[in-house]
Order: sequence, then C-alpha cells, then structure tokens
Amino acid sequence: MNDLLAHTRDDRGVHRLTLNDAARFNVLGDAMLAALSEAVTRIAADEGARALVIAARGKAFCAGHDLREMAAQDKAQHLDLFERCSRFMVSLARLPVPVIAAVQGVAAAAGCQLVAQCDLAIAANGTRFGVNGIDIGLFCGTPSVALLRNVPHKAGMHMLMTGDFVDAEAALRLGLVSEVCAPEGLDAAVEALLLKLLARPREALAMGKALVAQQRTLGLEAAYALASRTMAENLALPVTQEGVRAFVDKRAPNWRVSPADPV
Amino acid sequence: MNDLLAHTRDDRGVHRLTLNDAARFNVLGDAMLAALSEAVTRIAADEGARALVIAARGKAFCAGHDLREMAAQDKAQHLDLFERCSRFMVSLARLPVPVIAAVQGVAAAAGCQLVAQCDLAIAANGTRFGVNGIDIGLFCGTPSVALLRNVPHKAGMHMLMTGDFVDAEAALRLGLVSEVCAPEGLDAAVEALLLKLLARPREALAMGKALVAQQRTLGLEAAYALASRTMAENLALPVTQEGVRAFVDKRAPNWRVSPADPV
Amino acid sequence: MNDLLAHTRDDRGVHRLTLNDAARFNVLGDAMLAALSEAVTRIAADEGARALVIAARGKAFCAGHDLREMAAQDKAQHLDLFERCSRFMVSLARLPVPVIAAVQGVAAAAGCQLVAQCDLAIAANGTRFGVNGIDIGLFCGTPSVALLRNVPHKAGMHMLMTGDFVDAEAALRLGLVSEVCAPEGLDAAVEALLLKLLARPREALAMGKALVAQQRTLGLEAAYALASRTMAENLALPVTQEGVRAFVDKRAPNWRVSPADPV
Repeated sequence: MNDLLAHTRDDRGVHRLTLNDAARFNVLGDAMLAALSEAVTRIAADEGARALVIAARGKAFCAGHDLREMAAQDKAQHLDLFERCSRFMVSLARLPVPVIAAVQGVAAAAGCQLVAQCDLAIAANGTRFGVNGIDIGLFCGTPSVALLRNVPHKAGMHMLMTGDFVDAEAALRLGLVSEVCAPEGLDAAVEALLLKLLARPREALAMGKALVAQQRTLGLEAAYALASRTMAENLALPVTQEGVRAFVDKRAPNWRVSPADPV
Repeated sequence: MNDLLAHTRDDRGVHRLTLNDAARFNVLGDAMLAALSEAVTRIAADEGARALVIAARGKAFCAGHDLREMAAQDKAQHLDLFERCSRFMVSLARLPVPVIAAVQGVAAAAGCQLVAQCDLAIAANGTRFGVNGIDIGLFCGTPSVALLRNVPHKAGMHMLMTGDFVDAEAALRLGLVSEVCAPEGLDAAVEALLLKLLARPREALAMGKALVAQQRTLGLEAAYALASRTMAENLALPVTQEGVRAFVDKRAPNWRVSPADPV
Repeated sequence: MNDLLAHTRDDRGVHRLTLNDAARFNVLGDAMLAALSEAVTRIAADEGARALVIAARGKAFCAGHDLREMAAQDKAQHLDLFERCSRFMVSLARLPVPVIAAVQGVAAAAGCQLVAQCDLAIAANGTRFGVNGIDIGLFCGTPSVALLRNVPHKAGMHMLMTGDFVDAEAALRLGLVSEVCAPEGLDAAVEALLLKLLARPREALAMGKALVAQQRTLGLEAAYALASRTMAENLALPVTQEGVRAFVDKRAPNWRVSPADPV
C-alpha cells in the first residue's frame, strides 16, 4: 500500500487500484509505476483474485508520464522508464483476471494507453481521451501499441499525429472503451460488470483471456488449433463439468452466483 | 441430404444449407456437424457453385454446440469435436464462393462463430448474438477466433467475458454482420445480395477471397506483392479480358447478368 | 512537374499533389503513376518537407487504373503495373511526413486504395468510395490490402465482392477516412489539419509513423520493446528536449507554431 496508490481487495477477490495523486493528475512517475507494478505482482500471486479495477481520484484519470521527473533524466533512464512501463502494461495483459478501467476526467498519453491496455473499460460521460505527447514533440509510441489494437487505424493516427482528444461517446464508437455511463453512475456500472464476471468461473476467464492474447497474430488454422486445445482443457475443469451438468439438468450451476447474492 | 440439414442448389449454382433442427435450436451436434462438413465438401467440388447461403429454420439460427451430447463425452472426444468444428469453419474460409449467413432469432456461441466466419452476413432485426459459453464456465475460445477477426477488441472481450448478447443493430455497428433488414425481408435481402454476386465472375471472387485470407497476417510489402501477382492472374482470365473490353467499348460484358434477368 | 499532376510546395514544407486529368477521371495510368512516384521520391528527399496532401481536380478524385491502357497490355505488363503501383503505395507509407488524402467526387478501385493508404483522409460530404473492379471481373486485390487495414472485415468484403459504393459518412463510420466536411469546406479542413501537424515536430511525427508501421504485425511484447526504444530516441531529440522543458516551465516550446501564426 502506498500514498500514491490505494490498493483494496474485497472478500469476493475484487482488487481495486486507485491512483491517488490528484494534485499531479495521477502521473505515472517512477514511484507510481513501481507501486502499480508491485501491486499487479501481488494480484498475480493471489489465487483468489477475481478481477482488477483500475480507477483514479481527482480531475484526471491519468495524465501519462511525469515530464517533470523525466526532464532530469538521461536517455538510458528514459529507455528504462519506457521498458518498465511496458512491462507493467504487459503484466495487465498477462494477469489471469479481467482488468477493468473505470475512467473519468482525462486519460492522456500513457493514461490513455492504460485504458487501452485493460480488457474492459467503462468511461463516465465527459471523460476525454488523448495521446497528445506529440504536443511537446514526443510521439506516443508505447501508447500507440495499445491504442491501435483497439481503434481503427486512421482514427488512431489522427489522435497520435494531432494530439486531438475524443470524448467518451467517440471512445465507445471507436472501441477504446466498452461502455459509457453517467458520471454519477460509474461505481454502479463497475459493480454491475463485476457481478457478471464474478458469476463466471475464474479459471475459464483466465484460460480465455490467455487464448485471446496468444491467437492474435496467428493465422486462422493455427488460431483454431490453439483454441480447440484450450476449450478441451477448459471443458475438463470440474467447475465447467458442473456447468454442463447444470445446463443439462436445467438448473443453475452450484458455483453460479446470482447478481443479487454476491459471495 | 439429411433431416437435420436441408441442402438445395438452384440452377444458378446457389447452394443453401438450412439448419433444420428447430426443436434443439439447431445445435451443432455430431450429426449436424457431419452433415454440414459433408455438404461443404460437396459444394467445394461443384465447379458450377456460385454462392453458399447458410440459414436456419426455427426460433434460433444456431445455439452452438450440443451440451447434452458433450456431457457424455470425455476430453479426447471434446478435443476431437472442437477440431472437427474448426475444420468445418476453416472449410468455409477456403470455399471458393462467397458464404453468406442469413440470420434470425439467436446466434449463440458456435452459432455466433458461424456468422462471424462467413464472408458476409445479413441479420433480421431482432436477432440476438452472443458468445455465452462462459455462462456455464466454458469460454468461447474457438468462437473468439472468428469474432475477434470481425469486431473491435474490447467489444469482443465484453461479449466473451460477460456472455452478454448484442442485437442486430449493434452487430452491424460492430462489424459482426454486413447488413440488417426487416425480419420479413430476410429472403429478399439475401436474393438482392445474391444477384450482385451472381453478376460477377466466380473465378474473380474466388481469387479475391483466397487473397484476402492469405494476406491477412503479412506485412504491407509482402501483402502487396501477393496481391499484385493475384491481380495479374485475375486479369488474364478470359472472363476478365471480356470485362475490360466491354468497359472500353462502353457495353455490358457478355457474362454480366442484370439483376432483373437472373440466369 | 507535369500536366497530369500538379506538384506544389509552400514555404512551410507542405507538398500538394493534385491529380489533374479530370477528363479521364484522374486514372492511375502509366504516366500518372510515373509522375506520382517521381514526386514522392522528390518529397522523400526534401528534408524540409512537413506534409503531403493528395487532392484532385474534377468530378472524380481518382477512378483507379486506366483500363483503356491496360486493355492493350499483356500479363507481364499488368504484373509490372501492379508492382509499380504497389511500390508507390508503399512509398506513401514510408514517407516520413503525414500523408493526407483530400477527397471529393468518386474514389474507386485503386483510387479508393490511395485514400486508404494515406495516413489521414478528409472527405467532402457527397464523396463516394468503392472497390468495384469486380464489376468488370477484376477483384480489387491490391486495394483490398489497404482497405482491410482500415475497415472492419465484413464491411470490406461486402464492398470488394459486390462493388457497392459507400458515402462519406459511411466511410467515416467504417474508418476509411478520418474526417468529413462540407464540400465547400474541404480546403479549410485540410488547412486546419495542416496547422495542427505543422505545430508538431517533423522528426517526432516521422519516428512515430515509422513505428506504427513496424509494430503492426508484432506480438505485444515485441511491439512494446520497439516502441520503448523509439520513444527514448524521440525524447533525445533537441526539439523534444525543448518541448519537455517548455512543459515544465509552463510556456510554449520555442518551436511551437500557433494555429493563428503559421511560419
């Protein structure tokens, strides 16, 4: 735990990381990045973890890297910073639980990348998204990796080359977020999504998330071959065997948690 | 032909496979899958084939795999099932004619995959699409391969991780289908699309469909090199030579069929 | 310079190539293609270049290849034509400056490909886009390479297989263009976009554009590794060092040109 980053875990296994450096717009400085990375390492080791929500306090979700800190660093330190940040981003993709961005305010540069790198993202109406490093002459290279795996090519290039921001509705239309809600409804929207995820087995979501990542650059036959093996493994899980039996018996699986009855 | 699957071919070369197991929501059980696979093998051998329409009778287009059947099978049988199903899906991609899904009711799990794997898809308003295997603890792995080659990443992940369904309008917006029509207009919409496809040469569509699949994972230069060779081959076809001459002579090519005058 | 193609460069480094063969709908015949290729070679050698705008005079932006010319050529010549055209398209992707299509009228076949291959595209309302080679029996193979890296798969397949055109609003929704404007506002929209690009450093845009192209077919970790190195190099540029200092000092970078004050 950390002043910069609040980390909670509820008894359902829902981890929440809340960026808590509102005065500096929750920038991803060395300390924040270290706190985030350590937290994700801990969550990866928690076999009871079910989901990770990344949220923020203050007017900005996250303004990207900490330019004040970077101004005092040399090129080797900058490379190290981008590599550490990339490892953190990859660690979100490797995490066996769904990662949800709960976004309000402004998500800029590496802050926008953070949203793009999550599996799912809910944005409050009024949120603004941009990859505007180019405004100071720094093309948002690492953000572009995540962004362009979410949004159509020309829309992404426009954002990257002009620094223009898009609003939440545009972000939804482009595919950068998966859901938009009223600003006062962000917590409720996150909870509604969590209830859906918690009502489904951790192991199945983990196998599926890993598969989706692995098959992405494969050709069609290789992707199907990997997916076939993954599904056979998934189906062999006790929890899924119970799911199939419950379906056949026309009853709820005994692991199934109703939205009204969280564990 | 088969009770489970109606297979017709008209004198234009249009094949129709109609899933005909409404009582069981047209599930892709072993028998249905075998019938589909054999039918596609026959269609692949029909040099006069011009298109394949995949449709269904009943309230569901297709509810996915047959969980009742699968409940009695072991892991090796499950792997074999997923591999057979994947081979069938790949055979649609390999078929030299356009494959059109004509969808109504519900397309779920492998049924949604079937829509995604087709080249084109027309959905009646009111159709619902989902990859909801996760509801019983089975992440829709093989469906994800086709789905994520159609729709934006986060929208696909939301469907895969929550089991949520989307309606026809959302499916069109996301790219899962290429056209939406009124429920009573599905046959007419399919026929209008077929007339366009029939008015264009089989060989050119075949070369184009194969190229699109082959270039997908290539870099830009390799993709253009392959496409250049394909176009030179295509242009050398007698039918295309006539097409070019007709264009220069400002007349219809002698192979061109007007929509009002189907063969 | 050339009757077929007007090439201007203003003192800001903005190159404009204006297709000027309205009587023949600005087809990409051998002479036009040679003129375009030579122009891009010159622009690539201009270290003061800041952007390339590709526009057209007349009712058509570009109708694609010159079928009249091709009718008199043999297969080897056709292959050579497609390879030359592909090299030109790749040269736009390799150009270190942003390439903007300013589109009105009709962009068909290789004309639609030209729009798709640009980094950014502004279309006047009323513009129509199609890859309709299939109408004469020639599947738009090389255009499909660019198109399918812009638009969702099934929407692209529908255009390629039916020859159907889409309007500017649909092109924006699908991702084929990044902006739509009123027909009388095309020049102003291009100028507004140019001012944004000119206010950002050439070197940073060049490094970013190259990165985006290179990382496209890489897996996530390799893409992030390349992007991290690129950003460290970018940040070491004097212009970016000034950008960072200016940000920290809460002033405009001394290279930053305000939209109201073009160089």
